[in-house]
Order: sequence, then C-alpha cells, then structure tokens
Amino acid sequence: MTSNVMLPAMSINHDPGRAQVGIVGGGQLARMMCQSAISLGITVRVMANHRDDSTALIWPNVLVGDPDDPASLAEFCRSCEVVTFDHELVSLPALRQASAEAVIFRPSLAVLRIAQNKRLQRERFAAIGLPAPRFTIAETVEDAALFGAQVGWPCIIKSAVGGYDGRGVWVVKNLDEAEVIVSALLANGIEPLLEEHVTIVAEYAQQVARGADGDKRFYPLVETVQRNAILREAWIPAPVDAAIATQAREIASAIADHLQVVGMLAVELLYDGERLLINEIAARPHNSGHYSIEGCVTSQFEQHLRAVCGLPLGQTEMVSPLAVAVNVIGDHSSVNLVACLARASEVAGAHLHWYGKEHRPGRKLGHVTVLGSNMNEARQRAWTAAIQMGGAPCEEVVHD
Amino acid sequence: MTSNVMLPAMSINHDPGRAQVGIVGGGQLARMMCQSAISLGITVRVMANHRDDSTALIWPNVLVGDPDDPASLAEFCRSCEVVTFDHELVSLPALRQASAEAVIFRPSLAVLRIAQNKRLQRERFAAIGLPAPRFTIAETVEDAALFGAQVGWPCIIKSAVGGYDGRGVWVVKNLDEAEVIVSALLANGIEPLLEEHVTIVAEYAQQVARGADGDKRFYPLVETVQRNAILREAWIPAPVDAAIATQAREIASAIADHLQVVGMLAVELLYDGERLLINEIAARPHNSGHYSIEGCVTSQFEQHLRAVCGLPLGQTEMVSPLAVAVNVIGDHSSVNLVACLARASEVAGAHLHWYGKEHRPGRKLGHVTVLGSNMNEARQRAWTAAIQMGGAPCEEVVHD
Repeated sequence: MTSNVMLPAMSINHDPGRAQVGIVGGGQLARMMCQSAISLGITVRVMANHRDDSTALIWPNVLVGDPDDPASLAEFCRSCEVVTFDHELVSLPALRQASAEAVIFRPSLAVLRIAQNKRLQRERFAAIGLPAPRFTIAETVEDAALFGAQVGWPCIIKSAVGGYDGRGVWVVKNLDEAEVIVSALLANGIEPLLEEHVTIVAEYAQQVARGADGDKRFYPLVETVQRNAILREAWIPAPVDAAIATQAREIASAIADHLQVVGMLAVELLYDGERLLINEIAARPHNSGHYSIEGCVTSQFEQHLRAVCGLPLGQTEMVSPLAVAVNVIGDHSSVNLVACLARASEVAGAHLHWYGKEHRPGRKLGHVTVLGSNMNEARQRAWTAAIQMGGAPCEEVVHD
Repeated sequence: MTSNVMLPAMSINHDPGRAQVGIVGGGQLARMMCQSAISLGITVRVMANHRDDSTALIWPNVLVGDPDDPASLAEFCRSCEVVTFDHELVSLPALRQASAEAVIFRPSLAVLRIAQNKRLQRERFAAIGLPAPRFTIAETVEDAALFGAQVGWPCIIKSAVGGYDGRGVWVVKNLDEAEVIVSALLANGIEPLLEEHVTIVAEYAQQVARGADGDKRFYPLVETVQRNAILREAWIPAPVDAAIATQAREIASAIADHLQVVGMLAVELLYDGERLLINEIAARPHNSGHYSIEGCVTSQFEQHLRAVCGLPLGQTEMVSPLAVAVNVIGDHSSVNLVACLARASEVAGAHLHWYGKEHRPGRKLGHVTVLGSNMNEARQRAWTAAIQMGGAPCEEVVHD
C-alpha cells in the first residue's frame, strides 16, 4: 500500500472548528471540492473572505477572514491537518509565517510560488527544456525595444504576478504601445514579462493528478475555447493526433515531477499548428476540468482531495465517448434565477452547476456539462442550457 | 413549458434562516439531497434531530429540533417554500398542524399517511386491482387463526405502522407463534397486518419520479438482495424478462398516478417465480436507487429536488451498461475509519459514499457503487471496497 504517507496525521473528527483538509479561498473550486468531500466523508474547513462567497453559502465549517492577514491565516492553518487552495492568489509571506504551525501545504509553497509567478514558470520550464514562447523580463523600456526587434511585433506583455482570466495581459502592436504598458508596470513595481506573439491555432489543457507518493494519473487532453481570455467552452477529448496528446502528457508529467506537485495540476498549452507551447500552469482543480464531475470515473475535485489527503488516486477514464462543458458567464440583461433554473432544467442531459453567485455581467456563474457521442449535439445542448441559465452567448462560437 | 407549477412561490435567497426546500430528517438521504442541491443552486434547510445527524455534519442551514413537536415543526415549515422528507416516520398530527403555515408538502400528507401505514397500502392497492400478497387485519387472535387456516402457515405478521429495515416484521411458523405476536401488538394498540408467506425467488425495486405536472420518468428496475430485511446489494438493471420489467413499470405508474405522488416513488416488489407482488412503497429517494448518483443521467436525489421544486424532470437513462451498489453495514470489529478510507480508495472504479456516522455494528455507514459491463467483476469490486470501508461481509452473498 502506497497511500499512508499522511495517514498518521489524519483523524476523523466532527469538531466543527477542526478539519482534515483546509481550503484557502471560498470560490466555486472550493465549493465543488466540498461537494466531493461529502461522499468521501472527509472533513473540510474553508477560509473564505466573505460570508456570501460561493462555498460559504453551502458549507458549515467556514472561517471568514482575510488569508493575506498572517494571524487569521495561522489561526486557520492550526485547525487543519493539510491545507490546499481554491486559487493561488494568496500572500506567500503570510503562508510562510503560517507554516510555523507545522501545517502541511499541498501543493507546497514552493509550487504555489511558481504558480503565482509567470516569470518563474517561464524560467523554470525553460531550464528543464520544455517548450514555451520566447520571453524576456523587461527591466527597462529599452529591454522591450530589444525584444520586439528580436521576435517582431505584436508582442504580449504580462504582469508577472497577480493576473487571471486575462487581467494583467496586454497585446501590444508596436513599440509605442509597449512603452506605455511597460512604463506603467515598472512605475508600479510590477515585473513586465514580454513574450512573443504566437499564432494560436488551438488551446489545450492537460490535467494530471500527482499523489503524495508520486503516483500520477493523466486526464484526457481538453481543447479549450477562450474568448477575451476567459474559458468559454471545453471539448473532451481534444480532437488531436495521438502525437499531440502524447506530447501534452509528457509536458505535464515533466512539470508535475519537477515541481513535485501533490494534487491536481493543469497545464495550459498553446498550439501554433506545429508545436505545443506552455502557456501557464495551475496547481489545483481547473476550470477546464469541470466536465470530469460527470465525465470521468474520478472527478478532479475528488482526485485533488485524494491527493492532498495522501489517499490512493482514482481512475481518470471517461465514462462516455465525449463531453462538452460550457461556462455560464453573466450576460448583460437582468435575469430571474429561478426562471433560469426552470428553463435550463428542460434541456435533456444537461448537468447544471450553479455557483450560488449573484448574477453580474461577465461573472462566472456556473457551468453546464453534457456527455454524449456526438460533439455537435452535445455542444448544442450545453450552449442552450448555459444561455437559459443566464449566460452570455459567445458570438464567435458556433451555436444556434 | 410545463415546469412553472410552483415558480411563483420560489425565490433564490441566501438568508440562512430560509430556504426553497425544507427536508424533515437529517439522515443520509437528506445528506445526498443536499449534495445535489449544491449543483442546482437550490437553497435547502434541514430539520435534524441531532447536531451529529448525517446531514447536519455537512450542511450549514440546519434546524436542530424534534419534528414530532408541532411547534418546532411549524417553525421549520414557516421558513421553507416546500417541505419534503428524509424518511416517513414523522408525526402526521404535527404535520397537519404545521400545514396551517400554508407550506406545500411534497409528497402530500395524504401520500405520507399511506407510506407510513402498511395496512392502508394493502387496502388502497387492492382496491385499484394491483397485485399483492393476500392479507388481513387481525382484530383478535381468532382472526389470525382464520387467516392461517385460509392461506396456510407460515405467515407474515407486520406492525401496520412504524417498522423499517425489518423491524416490526415477524415470520410465524404456526398459530401458537402467531398468537404471541398478535396478542402483544394488540395489547400495545398496534394493528397486526397478517400476510401470506410468499416464496420469494427475487426482490425488485421500481423507482419512478413524478413531477408536479404529472410527468413521470421511470428508472431501470433494480434487483435488490436483502439479508435480515436490510438491503445489502442492488443490481441494475435487474436481469429479468422484458415482460417483468414492463409489469413493474405499470405497477409503479399506477401507484404514482393514483396517489398523485410528487417526487421520487420506490415500489418494492416480491417475485414468486410467476408474479410480481407489491411489498411496500416509499415516497422519497430509496436505498435501492443510490447507484443513480453515478449510474444515471439524473440521480434520484437531484430528481426528487427537481420534482418538489416544480422543475422539469431529468433523464433517467443509465450512463453505463450496468451498475452494482453495495451497502456498507457496520461490522462487529472495531475499525479505523481513516485506514478504511485509504484501503477502500485503492479499489479501482469504486465510488465511495460515507454517511459521516460513527461506526456501529449493524449500522448503515455508507455505500459503494461500481459501474461496468460485467456484473461479476463489478460486484467483486463493490464488495471489496465495502468490506474495506468496514462493512460486514454477507455470507450468503457470493463474494471472494
């Protein structure tokens, strides 16, 4: 048996102040982890910023507090046997202080540091020979000019830390535009990461679970459809050649082992028609893997809990030939959520997932998964249900 | 659209004191309903007897109170738009008093009254010509003698109300034994229901969901394996001739419509080698339907919530050729739940469901579902995981 890595420290308890697993952050990922924890009988405590965070609405064991406050975070960590994360935007200094509490972080703070920082990702992955867009760190505007001259315009500029869902990413057409962004970032003490502009033919996400014992389980490659840098739709398995799928696995495998990730790892990949290039990573359940709740033997949420608790990993095989998941992004019109639920429930085979959030334009309110054997039919149903749920349609994505 | 039956009354709310759905009882059925409610975004409030009831451990919106106390029950009903049940052993007089709160009960109190009372079931189903064992109500010991002479010994004696999992059921070999039980029941003011002893070749459960608009969706027939009147194992679909499956559906359909059930209905059926005979009904999710969480497009728990909220019903098709579910019944040995979880997690494809209860011999602690295409292999895995979870093996059921 390979699974007893953390068993000595684990105990079943129903003390509402304590838990086997702590999750920092109360968003929809924590919410779906809690939903999985019910089946496994694992006790979970959540640190949420607000009482009306997605997870705090449905979970009894919640500490409302600011995870960037070292004292609150330390208090939270003291009450958990292992701590994991809903998102990576947590203060590392606060986490380091909390680590004095002898808590186990899974993923480790070393992994979290890299997941938080696009510069470190680029440097680390380049060092072990993994494919990624050419990049530089601009310490001055001149560095940007040099890089642009080298790789050509347009270029991508990213804030090395803090961005998500397209925030902190700019496409600049020329040096003038680059200067504006680079100067502004530098003036605010933020490192500008410059990258070559890759002509993207498709985007993929490769998920892998890595256990506390190093065991790895790969999920099928996901083709992700992004609009305005937000994931709108995921197709599983990605319709690619076996060689591409193999390459994606090899990249994710190398990263998981190199970083010694414990838990779920998602590697976002760009495809330029010839090569896969690493975009970025997330060391947690990922928006591209929501389909796995119904689509795989073991969902990414259960799998993440298994890994962080030192349990054996579950099977990742799909239970149907294919799956489609569509994100519900709040539309600009006002909606009646109850009427939305009623209409969306009429769509045959649509698995609805609401995150409990108030409707707001541009907000991720939920997702829909449809399993099937015909991709067009599954997409049709998933989009119909997502729009009925109050989601914005995606003009560039085909759906009637 | 057929789904707006109760929409005018439904509102999304996050007031922890209020909910769209109230569930009376905090057992594992309520727990799994709550787990489904997370995806649907439906707010649920639970009335549990104790803080450590299965559902109270994982749900934030719980009123701890005695549902047989009319004042507590009325308080609970006032805070919910529709009220449903985890089990049917709730005081009808208290519910009738609470119905002054203008709450909607789904199923209705008329259905609950019948689900609570085996005599009423026998009479009602006989009146509409449905097949059931011959029966009588013994008002005196002489009635028992007469009935035994008529149908032959052994006979079955049941307490008309209050029994479950084999409690309140006796097999009597002769008149002497019958006299003991009948006298004892009569002395305690309990109606003795006498039934002919049917030679049981197999037992089945037919589940059907009925919506607020009368729409019905049938689940596949389940073969149930009972030992000591407790469900140990369920095989889906039941390996029967099409004629038997059709007959089971017709019986369930007739009962659902006759009683105007809203929600899940399970009809337990006995098969004597020739005919299906109604054993009893439950107007709620049922132990035989737990496989539907992974095994069907819409689980019985989500379906029940859809029905009681007046939403359109979901598809009931299976997502794999077959499923096996095994109940985890506490064994006599003491166990370490954490070690159990670790070992059970190693069984490939085993979906573990813990109910959060302390281990106690004979107690339903959880269940395991395995999907597949080979019944023996699926059973093997499910039993292995169930025993690893601390479940008692079942000597008479084949498993190695």
